[in-house]
Amino acid sequence: MTSAVEPIIWAGDRLRLLNQRLLPHEERYIDCVNAAEVADAIHSMAVRGAPAIGISAAYGLALAAKRGDSYAQAEQVLAASRPTAVNLRWAIERMRKVWQRKPDADLLIDEARTIHAEDIAQNHRMAEFGVALLPENARVLTHCNTGALATGGHGTALGVIRTGWAAGRVTEVFHTETRPWLQGARLTAWELAREKIPARMIVDGAAAHLMKSLKIDWVIVGADRIAANGDTANKIGTYALALAAKAHGVRFMVVAPSGTFDLSCASGDGIPIEERSDDELTRFAGTQIAPVGVRGFNPVFDVTPAALIDAIVCEHGVVERPSEAVVRRLLQKEKV
Amino acid sequence: MTSAVEPIIWAGDRLRLLNQRLLPHEERYIDCVNAAEVADAIHSMAVRGAPAIGISAAYGLALAAKRGDSYAQAEQVLAASRPTAVNLRWAIERMRKVWQRKPDADLLIDEARTIHAEDIAQNHRMAEFGVALLPENARVLTHCNTGALATGGHGTALGVIRTGWAAGRVTEVFHTETRPWLQGARLTAWELAREKIPARMIVDGAAAHLMKSLKIDWVIVGADRIAANGDTANKIGTYALALAAKAHGVRFMVVAPSGTFDLSCASGDGIPIEERSDDELTRFAGTQIAPVGVRGFNPVFDVTPAALIDAIVCEHGVVERPSEAVVRRLLQKEKV
Repeated sequence: MTSAVEPIIWAGDRLRLLNQRLLPHEERYIDCVNAAEVADAIHSMAVRGAPAIGISAAYGLALAAKRGDSYAQAEQVLAASRPTAVNLRWAIERMRKVWQRKPDADLLIDEARTIHAEDIAQNHRMAEFGVALLPENARVLTHCNTGALATGGHGTALGVIRTGWAAGRVTEVFHTETRPWLQGARLTAWELAREKIPARMIVDGAAAHLMKSLKIDWVIVGADRIAANGDTANKIGTYALALAAKAHGVRFMVVAPSGTFDLSCASGDGIPIEERSDDELTRFAGTQIAPVGVRGFNPVFDVTPAALIDAIVCEHGVVERPSEAVVRRLLQKEKV
Repeated sequence: MTSAVEPIIWAGDRLRLLNQRLLPHEERYIDCVNAAEVADAIHSMAVRGAPAIGISAAYGLALAAKRGDSYAQAEQVLAASRPTAVNLRWAIERMRKVWQRKPDADLLIDEARTIHAEDIAQNHRMAEFGVALLPENARVLTHCNTGALATGGHGTALGVIRTGWAAGRVTEVFHTETRPWLQGARLTAWELAREKIPARMIVDGAAAHLMKSLKIDWVIVGADRIAANGDTANKIGTYALALAAKAHGVRFMVVAPSGTFDLSCASGDGIPIEERSDDELTRFAGTQIAPVGVRGFNPVFDVTPAALIDAIVCEHGVVERPSEAVVRRLLQKEKV
């Protein structure tokens, strides 16, 4: 099963990124010819989703090497493009090892393509692990966009839902609209519609009522960074979903490749939370919603404590009731 | 202290309603000359907020009587305009008693004006009761719009915040944007800006993170219907705020006039929850957000169980830790 969506295309001398700011109304690519343009695309959220950001940054470094631009400067501008997603840092470090071994553009291009291909393969493995946790006729709720658009392809949380739907295990899908960027309304709805997976959308604030009035089996979300103890930073609103899930006996699954773990953060308290401009709250689709001058508090992520998470799924397997000991044990598998 | 906002104006032969669909960009009134036009304004949410709906319906009945239209038909069309707000039914019943005693239009006009004036007076009383519960330098969070626009004037939950701000007791105000209708972004932000009360807006999904990262003392909300046991129906998203408040030791206050209680509902399970069109989720401000054809689940209210509510404030006083016994005791005061 392959995804019909190709959000990241390596074209030899440039990186083509599907401009997610224009979806679902327009499918237009941005052609990035250097690292600064890739960083711009990440910062402006033309490309978003932690794994997709990591892959794009890797290609951005490959572009810098190919053009003979300063590698250190390319690293710096890419690293500064978004603060919370650890995949970004992870990809930059992985590329640096290759560069330090031998500063050869072709090797970097190969490495970026490998990171990209591995991400897709990991997504399919995670999807199998995740689906195995679901009951028959599962009714699930997801948040934000964690599909092909957020990754190299297929998706993390949405990958579980895709595979679960194809296998007949998932029978009903709900998703939030995901304010303020509406990744759910614009991107998840678009991906699900493209694959003809029937779904219903709710406003973010309706999730607790949904869980009370209809039986939801699992909330399934992605992650931007996972601390050593399992605390998980993800799109703003995730923590509220986890609190509501706990109150209603709904299980809570985080799906993210092992590159999302940051063992240097002992707990969620150590994860920096990006705050973005008030404009993202007060304006929408070119329209001023709130009166001009209204101030906002606009954190883009929040941290869900490990105690509210029933399972973290990565490409190595499943951690149930996450804690530092089991997280470290799972990640050891990577080194075998 | 009077509010600068006059959302409901009785003009002798018509009811002038400030069109809340156009705020904050345009301040334009709708002139309703008969009950059907008032019902339309309620149904289309040009006027909204449980107390404001009740007051408008009362004036609608006065209009019907004055014009010599069928009183029974006016009652019917007004009663059907919104299903959840019990103030609507309460106002209709109160008007009916006057009409049954003596079918005289002038008496109905007087009664509607009395309901309107009483609402404003009640709001000021509730504000005093509510402010007395707050600590010094209180930092509060509110949801939806419960201000002058939602009531006869001053407001319920926002009335507490207004009075608390004027008294120097409230020092910081946060409010949600309140999807899908954005009553917080459009209306609460507008009212607070008009009175120069500094405030910050969050997306609904950010409330749990706000409570974790900044100390919030009280969540203060209104109500559309309160069951005998204290379970409270209010704007969708309220229940999620109450769950987050409980998880963070933030106290939770409901502010609503006694007309909001419905003792015929033993618990929240008996309260009908209005579901509105999917269009309200997929379109915004004339713009299609989600792909065409996306389905939604769009409940407008949810029910917060009494166990999550620290205090219900009405014009007769405060119920702490609500239960059926204390609710009934408080409402007895009305009959003295």
